Amino acid sequence: MSLLIKDVLVGQSVEDILIEGNRIQQISTGIQVDADEVLDGSGKAAIPSFINGHTHAAMVLLRGHADDMPLDEWLNNKIWPIESHLTEEDVYWATRFACLEMVKSGTTFFNDMYWYYHGVARAVEDAGIRSAVSAVFIDLFDEGKAAEQIELNQRLFDETSQYSSRVHFALGPHAIYTVSTRSLEWARSFAEEHNVFIHTHLSETRSEVDECQQRFKKRPVEYLHDIGLLGPNLIAAHVIWVNDREIELLKEHQVQVIYNPTSNMKLSAGIFPYERLKKAGINIALGTDGCASNNNLDMLEEMKFGALLQKLGEENPAALPAAEVFQLATSKAGSAFRLEAGELREGMLADLLLIDLNEVHLIPHHDLLNNLVYSAQSSSVDTTICDGKILMKHRVIEDEEEVKQKAQEVARDLLQR
Amino acid sequence: MSLLIKDVLVGQSVEDILIEGNRIQQISTGIQVDADEVLDGSGKAAIPSFINGHTHAAMVLLRGHADDMPLDEWLNNKIWPIESHLTEEDVYWATRFACLEMVKSGTTFFNDMYWYYHGVARAVEDAGIRSAVSAVFIDLFDEGKAAEQIELNQRLFDETSQYSSRVHFALGPHAIYTVSTRSLEWARSFAEEHNVFIHTHLSETRSEVDECQQRFKKRPVEYLHDIGLLGPNLIAAHVIWVNDREIELLKEHQVQVIYNPTSNMKLSAGIFPYERLKKAGINIALGTDGCASNNNLDMLEEMKFGALLQKLGEENPAALPAAEVFQLATSKAGSAFRLEAGELREGMLADLLLIDLNEVHLIPHHDLLNNLVYSAQSSSVDTTICDGKILMKHRVIEDEEEVKQKAQEVARDLLQR
Repeated sequence: MSLLIKDVLVGQSVEDILIEGNRIQQISTGIQVDADEVLDGSGKAAIPSFINGHTHAAMVLLRGHADDMPLDEWLNNKIWPIESHLTEEDVYWATRFACLEMVKSGTTFFNDMYWYYHGVARAVEDAGIRSAVSAVFIDLFDEGKAAEQIELNQRLFDETSQYSSRVHFALGPHAIYTVSTRSLEWARSFAEEHNVFIHTHLSETRSEVDECQQRFKKRPVEYLHDIGLLGPNLIAAHVIWVNDREIELLKEHQVQVIYNPTSNMKLSAGIFPYERLKKAGINIALGTDGCASNNNLDMLEEMKFGALLQKLGEENPAALPAAEVFQLATSKAGSAFRLEAGELREGMLADLLLIDLNEVHLIPHHDLLNNLVYSAQSSSVDTTICDGKILMKHRVIEDEEEVKQKAQEVARDLLQR
Repeated sequence: MSLLIKDVLVGQSVEDILIEGNRIQQISTGIQVDADEVLDGSGKAAIPSFINGHTHAAMVLLRGHADDMPLDEWLNNKIWPIESHLTEEDVYWATRFACLEMVKSGTTFFNDMYWYYHGVARAVEDAGIRSAVSAVFIDLFDEGKAAEQIELNQRLFDETSQYSSRVHFALGPHAIYTVSTRSLEWARSFAEEHNVFIHTHLSETRSEVDECQQRFKKRPVEYLHDIGLLGPNLIAAHVIWVNDREIELLKEHQVQVIYNPTSNMKLSAGIFPYERLKKAGINIALGTDGCASNNNLDMLEEMKFGALLQKLGEENPAALPAAEVFQLATSKAGSAFRLEAGELREGMLADLLLIDLNEVHLIPHHDLLNNLVYSAQSSSVDTTICDGKILMKHRVIEDEEEVKQKAQEVARDLLQR
């Protein structure tokens, strides 16, 4: 299967892009090939598709259900009671719908943590995008629950072989306040043995740090360091309340850090210390978090929130400029997840977008990256390609209506249980 | 001319809406009328269209041209040199294009301040929406310039009678650091005599306050109070750096205050003291500011930034909830500009939107206002009606391609002058 995109803007020049199988084979002018499919790229710009570094995709079912509430009340009275009624089929359709929203806004990889691993994995498989899928691992410091979770994760790891290479298994120990030290130690050794990612929430709120200090007499990153969890396989979401010593440790162990500006603002978590982490040389990527705390999965919007929140926090309009936040959503996220994606280069995975330069938010054409970050919306994405396959063409996705209808049905039904 | 919208969601119930001329005549079920045009509202929700409380619409020409720069450098080296080459025709097409973007994102009134009054006014007239149009009034404390500006504004006020009632004349004294006391005093008496609005920037940055204290030995709001400028006709944009005494003065004189969260973040201006102003009982509306500091004109996005910035600043996820920020973009803005708009009620101006409930960001249907504020994008707006006329139907605007092309041409040409 080959796909030729003709006359598309790549950086500053008009090029052709040849995709063979699931890879970018060639980027140059005047490619003469008898491709299986040809796309006219004129009036469009090709960019790498987006990588969402941290989310709970299926939470799209709860979009708009409970907003403007304190975190505890929100979790205890709204989110958790509803989630206790979820089925794998709900999670499948919710994640299908989340994938639909992602494809429509140009995201082709997401790092997920949620219930019903196979519901998520099947949805990713069917939607045609990529994901690091992790089951929420919570043992509440109970040995019996810990044993169950460990057994479950061992099984899920083995069962992941039934899916294509687009589905990556990851471990999802929820946070240090919900998972025992012993389970975290198990996660470390399992992740090392099988070379999989560990996806966790870390230092999101001040109270998390306070509790950790009371419980373990050390700060969260120090605690994780002491039990050996810090390493390049650790994907740590949030990381807001860290001191200089903790930043050093994160750098020393090459932890991947995910910045979730919209969620951090909506839940009043605080301002991510981007400049301090960047200065230390830590690799940072961008994530939307789940739809119950955002409430969408749009990486274009996330880039704008991400850049503007830093300008506000640093009291410097030059902080986190457009080209840099674009990297957090593409190339730096590619590095974090060791994907050969996030850049438009020959040999990379064919995960890319065609942006409609005639869309109202992208006119005039002074600077594409500025326009994408500060003005564009998902309607600016014309075509989404993942793994060499066209998932959306001129904003049309084949099964859009079916997926929307199922998601709506499942959401309605869930709230009546 | 009559327009009947059948079976549309209004609040919690499905209704018909009858528009006669430019007013909402009736909202009820089963309206039987032989209307000139009938719209099927099924699967859609009707809401009031948005009111943008502060912008410089024609600056859309500079979208993306210069971002991520300190304010002074940005104005002196980028914005002002380019603006010095503008013509009225440029401003006409720029504002036409801005109106196109506004109609596509559901805005039908904007409070504007820019150069070439008639360029803006003609564009508003032709685009079919409403605006309070003000010419930028800057005299740089020079008596000769002040006399010119006063004469110009007197003339523009008279000439506004050539336009429909959708074009409102306003005075636009730029700020206290660019306009002399004498000119501000003239603006006060002219506005009182002719009952027009005075649109100004106020207390946007800390340095503005410091300079004012040095120059006048008082803070900005105190200074305006002492020269008699505070009153219900004053539309003050930004108002970030105000103390309790200044808030009292703003309240006492019923000044209208505009909150511009995206611009305030992008330019690192600070966090608008929403809760303090609200507690004082001040009427607050929402604005996007110009596209050089936002970089779009989307009030849906602005509501999200507005709500989230307050949650961050107040360290309270319950601060500025969705239903409240929606009022800042509709009913409270209607009050600020004394428009019979911003609410869906019989007798009001027929300025309204049909929202596509099948759009991906609005599924599931747990709560429409939460979805609109925290998830929706301009693509959620299906139909825009202003003054009883359909300006966009199913996202189609008649002259969209022509307007886009002209805006792109003008922008390209402007940068080459």
